Amino acid sequence: MTQVPAQQLLEVAYDEALRGLSEGGIPIGAALFATDGTLLGRGRNRRVQSGDPSIHAETDAFRAAGRRRDYGSTIMVTTLSPCWYCSGLVRQFGIGAVIVGESQTFYGGHDWLAEHGVEVTVLEDQRLIDLMTEFIADKPALWNEDIGVADDIEAR
Amino acid sequence: MTQVPAQQLLEVAYDEALRGLSEGGIPIGAALFATDGTLLGRGRNRRVQSGDPSIHAETDAFRAAGRRRDYGSTIMVTTLSPCWYCSGLVRQFGIGAVIVGESQTFYGGHDWLAEHGVEVTVLEDQRLIDLMTEFIADKPALWNEDIGVADDIEAR
Repeated sequence: MTQVPAQQLLEVAYDEALRGLSEGGIPIGAALFATDGTLLGRGRNRRVQSGDPSIHAETDAFRAAGRRRDYGSTIMVTTLSPCWYCSGLVRQFGIGAVIVGESQTFYGGHDWLAEHGVEVTVLEDQRLIDLMTEFIADKPALWNEDIGVADDIEAR
Repeated sequence: MTQVPAQQLLEVAYDEALRGLSEGGIPIGAALFATDGTLLGRGRNRRVQSGDPSIHAETDAFRAAGRRRDYGSTIMVTTLSPCWYCSGLVRQFGIGAVIVGESQTFYGGHDWLAEHGVEVTVLEDQRLIDLMTEFIADKPALWNEDIGVADDIEAR
């Protein structure tokens, strides 16, 4: 569906992830594009920066794109496999394609999306695998908080 | 799981839905409670009011509850069957129970949540069925926009 190479679109999401890291946040970025590569919205996880647990990167990019009538020809690019919350966003609004930077450090709902007709591309970008591996090792409690894993409160 | 009658908890979400309607918005409300009935956060769909497509009622209530470490003992109350986006929120964060005001005018992911261990209660409150029935008849294009249905742009 994409008329622009997936790796090129991923760079915008990667920049957002790095910006999030530089702010002390969780380094996950996302961007919503039109099929021709026009950027509609970009964003990043801002749980830490805004104290808001609902701002996962995909939601932030979706919000930045504003109100729209039709997402079928849009592409959600995210640095990390989308969690159930973000996968639900893609499914509900009928976003046509998802480009996933990596799914090694977290495996979300992208197979489920593919089963429901979303065009899914997983790039397994080594820079992103390294970025998340280091982040999770550095701040495990923050990471668990972000994905709703509650069993290590003592490690906070 | 609830120590307070579900219908009583629903009243908070119902008030939020009515507030949304009075603001010219989509009349869906939600609230997140602790098991003992303590209100953690409440909110409503604010697509119209804030021009933000990401603020479904459940997300708004989740956000209002702030950052938390454990949702297993929380209850999400929503006036309407949760869409995939909001169902994904419940699943990802391990919210333990969902109380649904009605599922007649929209059938979302609450069966999926029940399959994944969430305690689901559907009340089929006639006031809410009437509220949404009237809203959808009055503003079909706005409603379709909110649930990602793109095929009636001409009815806008």
